[in-house]
Amino acid sequence: MIGGQRQLVTFGIGDGRIHEIFGILNPAASRVTVLGLGSMGSAIGRTFVERGYRTTVWNRTAGKSAPLVDVGATASATAAEAVAASPLVVVCLLDGAAVDEVLASVDDVVAGRVLVNLTSGSPAQARADERWVSEHGAEYIDGKIMGDPPYVGTPNFTVLLSGSRSAFDAHESALRVLGGVGYHGEDPGFAAVEFMAQVAMGYEMLIGFLHVLKLVRAEGGDVTEFAQRFAGSLAAYPPLLTGIAKAVASGEYPPDLGPLRVQAALMDDMIDHRESVGVETMRMRQVKELMDRRIADGHGEQGFSSLFELLAKEG
Amino acid sequence: MIGGQRQLVTFGIGDGRIHEIFGILNPAASRVTVLGLGSMGSAIGRTFVERGYRTTVWNRTAGKSAPLVDVGATASATAAEAVAASPLVVVCLLDGAAVDEVLASVDDVVAGRVLVNLTSGSPAQARADERWVSEHGAEYIDGKIMGDPPYVGTPNFTVLLSGSRSAFDAHESALRVLGGVGYHGEDPGFAAVEFMAQVAMGYEMLIGFLHVLKLVRAEGGDVTEFAQRFAGSLAAYPPLLTGIAKAVASGEYPPDLGPLRVQAALMDDMIDHRESVGVETMRMRQVKELMDRRIADGHGEQGFSSLFELLAKEG
Ligand SMILES: NC(=O)c1ccc[n+]([C@@H]2O[C@H](COP(=O)([O-])OP(=O)(O)OC[C@H]3O[C@@H](n4cnc5c(N)ncnc54)[C@H](OP(=O)(O)O)[C@@H]3O)[C@@H](O)[C@H]2O)c1
Ligand SMILES: NC(=O)c1ccc[n+]([C@@H]2O[C@H](COP(=O)([O-])OP(=O)(O)OC[C@H]3O[C@@H](n4cnc5c(N)ncnc54)[C@H](OP(=O)(O)O)[C@@H]3O)[C@@H](O)[C@H]2O)c1
Repeated sequence: MIGGQRQLVTFGIGDGRIHEIFGILNPAASRVTVLGLGSMGSAIGRTFVERGYRTTVWNRTAGKSAPLVDVGATASATAAEAVAASPLVVVCLLDGAAVDEVLASVDDVVAGRVLVNLTSGSPAQARADERWVSEHGAEYIDGKIMGDPPYVGTPNFTVLLSGSRSAFDAHESALRVLGGVGYHGEDPGFAAVEFMAQVAMGYEMLIGFLHVLKLVRAEGGDVTEFAQRFAGSLAAYPPLLTGIAKAVASGEYPPDLGPLRVQAALMDDMIDHRESVGVETMRMRQVKELMDRRIADGHGEQGFSSLFELLAKEG
Repeated sequence: MIGGQRQLVTFGIGDGRIHEIFGILNPAASRVTVLGLGSMGSAIGRTFVERGYRTTVWNRTAGKSAPLVDVGATASATAAEAVAASPLVVVCLLDGAAVDEVLASVDDVVAGRVLVNLTSGSPAQARADERWVSEHGAEYIDGKIMGDPPYVGTPNFTVLLSGSRSAFDAHESALRVLGGVGYHGEDPGFAAVEFMAQVAMGYEMLIGFLHVLKLVRAEGGDVTEFAQRFAGSLAAYPPLLTGIAKAVASGEYPPDLGPLRVQAALMDDMIDHRESVGVETMRMRQVKELMDRRIADGHGEQGFSSLFELLAKEG
């Protein structure tokens, strides 16, 4: 079976008959169902087909299953029919609301199956989905995707998983087909916590980056050259990040990035400069305001990490 | 002289007499003046002394020069006296206002010297300082420091420089004593542009990181373990950053990070989740609002980089 899978890969994508024949020759080939054939679900379904899985697919808008049927998948007319076809059901829809809607339509066929939900969403949604699935006699794994559709099936595609350990053990090899897979424990919410944290860091960095590109361009700099220089300086961040986390964990704040007193003066310069070139200052003003409060509280010699004390009190 | 410098380094820090003797044996040893002995200026002054430079120092509050005098520096009573002592004058004060004040007091002795200003500040300040220095018959190099005082003199200490090329050529070896030195061209404002851009990226990432640590902790995660995982995932960012810059430069926006339409749904989940655990949502709301505007304008299939179009119009 494993050997067969590998060979099929080298046979290439797009020749549905090979997979059909394979299915006939290997009636025991693992079965998997994919619900949702957006760009991500389609890439996932295609990857399962390519690796020799007997793949059943369903999508709300029926037309989207055609390319997958062409390569060897079986399309179901309803989500319930698709769920009934396989012990392992992978769900990849737009959002939690879509998942709720689709789950409601499969409530009487889901029992005894493993449902792996790769739809982006919150820890609370993951925990609620787990409850619903358990109550309906099935096992739940929540998964969060970090990667783009073209990378499904490669090591550059990461899936964070958490939830039922026994379900993970039973279907680990199928899940590893998708890419780099990490199992983060029984709490079905944990994959989403990690996802929310990692993705937030991405957006924080990248929205800041867009504003900074505007600054660089306003000053006559070359944005692609700046991107390369900044990409190069990312190597300096790991020790800083782990140092800040250590300070937050211990509550002892060294003068990281310099004393707040000195950083606050720099922050004023940055705000003035950004205003002079028409770049937004919202985030820098928030940082400055936090610094001023720490300094007023007598902590001007502590470093950047000590701002955490103020955040911890908020909200 | 070079050999002598190297040897002095191995003699170690703290024995002022060795440097005094060195000065006597090498009356032609290069002379450098350091104005400002805060934590950064002191580390810079000490590094010059250790590398065998005849170092003259001055600080507004006189007491701070004592430790440097102990290792072999000469302290001047006034900034003007200190400037008069060396062809190369390194300035490292709190901010631009401090620089203005000190420059005003050296206006009749600065002619014929090279002034390297390592005080943090804006491109406009750097350009104004350059004008003042030129008008007073001296040459100006603006420098921006990325690194902490303990790293002065090591490769982990970076100084971005721009301004007079001839002054840089004349004093390059002295400037390289400080650490990794990059000369970025004749525009005295350029070092500051790069600094403002790089430092902003640091603050964007790190303030985001503090908020995310709060989220991780609120969800029962371990902040130091998360920091390690995020530090590990930084390796994925260089291609993303250069891709975004390329999109911005060309005005052609692929669906980077997925289509905006899909990202906007994720952003709603992130905002809800952050609110549920008391983490601020200011930045995510800004991103969501930009996404919504792009989608409303009919660009929902473009990616994150296309938000730049909206930023470019603002301000
Ligand atoms: N694309 C990426 O780069 C990427 C990266 C990481 C994570 N993800 C996540 O992967 C998930 C899917 O993304 P995608 O790019 O595949 O999105 P997409 O191309 O927009 O596809 C959305 C899918 O959800 C279905 N859907 C939406 N509302 C529905 C409802 N009420 N009932 C049933 N089906 C519904 C759509 O069906 P119709 O065809 O009938 O509309 C479609 O199959 C999202 O959670 C996304 O955050 C995507
Ligand atoms: N420390 C870091 O980690 C770090 C990192 C990168 C860049 N920098 C930059 O390096 C520069 C110096 O930082 P630092 O850490 O050395 O700061 P610091 O320890 O606070 O020292 C500030 C210095 O500026 C002097 N000063 C302030 N106002 C003055 C005035 N009106 N007239 C004359 N002198 C004045 C102070 O003199 P008194 O002793 O008389 O107060 C002192 O010498 C800043 O621009 C900072 O942003 C620092």
